Amino acid sequence: MDLQVDESGRLRHLLTIEGLAPDLITAILDTAGSFTSVTERSVKKVPLLRGKTVVNLFFEPSTRTRMTFELAAKRLSADVLNLDIEHSSTRKGETLLDTLRNLEAMQVDMFVVRHSQSGAAHFFAQHAAPHVSVLNAGDGYHAHPTQALLDVFTIRTRRPDLENLVVTIVGDILHSRVARSQIHALRALGVPEIRVAAPATLLPRNVEEMGVQVYHRLEPALQGADVIIALRLQRERMRGAHLPSEAEYFRYYGLTPERLGKARDDAIVMHPGPINRGVEIASEVADGPRSVILQQVTNGIAVRMAVMAMTLGSRGGEPR
Amino acid sequence: MDLQVDESGRLRHLLTIEGLAPDLITAILDTAGSFTSVTERSVKKVPLLRGKTVVNLFFEPSTRTRMTFELAAKRLSADVLNLDIEHSSTRKGETLLDTLRNLEAMQVDMFVVRHSQSGAAHFFAQHAAPHVSVLNAGDGYHAHPTQALLDVFTIRTRRPDLENLVVTIVGDILHSRVARSQIHALRALGVPEIRVAAPATLLPRNVEEMGVQVYHRLEPALQGADVIIALRLQRERMRGAHLPSEAEYFRYYGLTPERLGKARDDAIVMHPGPINRGVEIASEVADGPRSVILQQVTNGIAVRMAVMAMTLGSRGGEPR
Amino acid sequence: MDLQVDESGRLRHLLTIEGLAPDLITAILDTAGSFTSVTERSVKKVPLLRGKTVVNLFFEPSTRTRMTFELAAKRLSADVLNLDIEHSSTRKGETLLDTLRNLEAMQVDMFVVRHSQSGAAHFFAQHAAPHVSVLNAGDGYHAHPTQALLDVFTIRTRRPDLENLVVTIVGDILHSRVARSQIHALRALGVPEIRVAAPATLLPRNVEEMGVQVYHRLEPALQGADVIIALRLQRERMRGAHLPSEAEYFRYYGLTPERLGKARDDAIVMHPGPINRGVEIASEVADGPRSVILQQVTNGIAVRMAVMAMTLGSRGGEPR
Repeated sequence: MDLQVDESGRLRHLLTIEGLAPDLITAILDTAGSFTSVTERSVKKVPLLRGKTVVNLFFEPSTRTRMTFELAAKRLSADVLNLDIEHSSTRKGETLLDTLRNLEAMQVDMFVVRHSQSGAAHFFAQHAAPHVSVLNAGDGYHAHPTQALLDVFTIRTRRPDLENLVVTIVGDILHSRVARSQIHALRALGVPEIRVAAPATLLPRNVEEMGVQVYHRLEPALQGADVIIALRLQRERMRGAHLPSEAEYFRYYGLTPERLGKARDDAIVMHPGPINRGVEIASEVADGPRSVILQQVTNGIAVRMAVMAMTLGSRGGEPR
Repeated sequence: MDLQVDESGRLRHLLTIEGLAPDLITAILDTAGSFTSVTERSVKKVPLLRGKTVVNLFFEPSTRTRMTFELAAKRLSADVLNLDIEHSSTRKGETLLDTLRNLEAMQVDMFVVRHSQSGAAHFFAQHAAPHVSVLNAGDGYHAHPTQALLDVFTIRTRRPDLENLVVTIVGDILHSRVARSQIHALRALGVPEIRVAAPATLLPRNVEEMGVQVYHRLEPALQGADVIIALRLQRERMRGAHLPSEAEYFRYYGLTPERLGKARDDAIVMHPGPINRGVEIASEVADGPRSVILQQVTNGIAVRMAVMAMTLGSRGGEPR
Repeated sequence: MDLQVDESGRLRHLLTIEGLAPDLITAILDTAGSFTSVTERSVKKVPLLRGKTVVNLFFEPSTRTRMTFELAAKRLSADVLNLDIEHSSTRKGETLLDTLRNLEAMQVDMFVVRHSQSGAAHFFAQHAAPHVSVLNAGDGYHAHPTQALLDVFTIRTRRPDLENLVVTIVGDILHSRVARSQIHALRALGVPEIRVAAPATLLPRNVEEMGVQVYHRLEPALQGADVIIALRLQRERMRGAHLPSEAEYFRYYGLTPERLGKARDDAIVMHPGPINRGVEIASEVADGPRSVILQQVTNGIAVRMAVMAMTLGSRGGEPR
């Protein structure tokens, strides 16, 4: 994805983890590390993006994701505008481009784009003016790169020896842009063993080609795992042919204390949120000592601040 | 309510007036007094809460109340996020707690909570992390403490001799969290005579136990009153069995110039707004020289600034 | 409109271009010119309105217009609140006044008002407190003064010799508050020849009295024109009796490259946006070298910043 970096190799847009240089991923995580101290202190604000304008362009509603980007931008002192565009079928490619051009003409510096269609953020980045950065906040089944970055940031904080880890991802891999981005990030950082566990109906065809080991039962997939990531089950999928019921899903793939016993003693449990208690995860596990689910949320702000600061800072000659 | 103060007796949350020490109420009013000069000057901003994040968590819509908290927070230089959560029946206790935990993980410093269920703000405060303050912006029929505080602030500004006053509250006492909070505040500040006037169907049982005198007719309740507070009639209640019609209500309980003649010559007229002209109050009275209804709105900003500054400033060691 | 200027002749409200002194229009354009450099630099913020509160009071939804005012206010460092009020028939004059009075009591400094009824902004300005400014962001079929100002600003930037120009406005003049305001602005600045081109059903009666030349066919109206302004066709009008179809409209009034050939070689093409491609304008023209449509958007921010700074700065004795 040459689109994501400028001629000096600096981050210009963040669209997908796929193809992103491991050094750049590490640089993002390092920058995020420097921002965690900002969010912990009393005055949680730095003037890095003062006078910059960030527009949250959400074609698909997601209050929580929107809030994390809004908070990240505000803590960098940017001005933030939220634009919730109803998922209207009348918004065709051309109109999308007109929307982009008009917002650019208002001297917007950054677009955070969420869209139900894969490739929407790429489309924006392809056509964006030189002064504009685009961040993908989730596009269709394709990618959700900031989520994957905050996940590997959280893992690295707890287990810096990434090259020794076994990571197990449980759940609806087929429809999950999160899983796709996580696998790319984990591989880029040298995690040697990535396992996916899901019923056959929730696995993409040829998923092995992504470099993962496939399990249809959860217990063996958890055996000796260092990190367990439960994915959110989209309830709307339950009504389709993919799955019989939530109770049935929990019976076979729910993360219970018993099943967690298969993993390593110091294994950590992750979830992109919001969690469905008693569906993907038992409350005892979600609220238990191994859960780092809330740390993920906290780290999400720092990671988004890092990506914003790096992309808007990548244009040469601009005062930082 | 020990929940509301920290071990040094400083304000930590504001949930209800009931049980709040009179000294603390007075301290809030004094602090609010110092903020009235801020809102009157040209640059209406002080940097007290710079870098703090305030989330307006409104489970029950109220544009006007939300705006007053948003303005108060912005004038203290805080970052404000508005989260309007539809009054969904699926939001059960546990999910509410997950919402709280997630927002806390985003390093939010303050929640302004409005909810149709009594006790919602208490629930948040009970479970809040040590660094977080909760302000109740109205919960069910229970409490609306900032409204009561701005009311007593307004009364005190006009009539500092609180221990000599007769205050009459007219209207739907039964369903009014405002009335309940007002009565607690007036009693705490030593107002010797508080009267309530309403039809029997709009009075709580055993209302006398709150330390008020009950009147079923308005005229005697106004006799010699120093302060008259008309409550807003919720129109949706009119369709129930409580009241025959708006016109009928106005006929017996509407505040007219004639009825106002029963009160003291320098009596002031108050209303929490928005007013229903010709229902609770005649336009001549609402817009007349005795009305302090708009001053209440102005004072509401200063009082909310005071509560925000005091609660977020109560954590020791933080730079103010 | 004495309402728009204070006793010293300085801008107090902006409600309509009609009756605004040419000197004042020129002063606004000059001030806007000084702000274009602000929006072009890296830190696009000046502290002129720090501590001021601007409320976008939109009774008629318009995300794009709202955004331009919000951005303008934020780049002047004002606090901005958005109040989207559904176009409810229950909002009668008196209630509108109560809304105004309440917001004023919250020490709001400026209202940006958009309303489907002509005269709404005037109503607010008539009743506004001395410290409050009102900007008309579009009222019914009446006026849209900031749009007209950004249009003449854009024309003046490209063609400073306004007194030599031929300007052609094409489209639905009848229902267009934009056209009405443009004609007033162009005349005030001494543009000698203003042409309007539209089917008879989309022209106001006695339109000649506005000082324009009327054409029912587009080609002769474009002959020798320096500036061509296509108006947006409101699609909801298409279903009425005014027009047969969009295709039919384009056939006779659409701005095509061929038709553009009639105009002067250096003619510029404008449109208030959002454009309907293939209805008012061919894509080749909208995206072509003569189009200044996106520059209009950029200039719109600077013009709104100018109007905001001038009106809020018009009160004597306030620190700027």
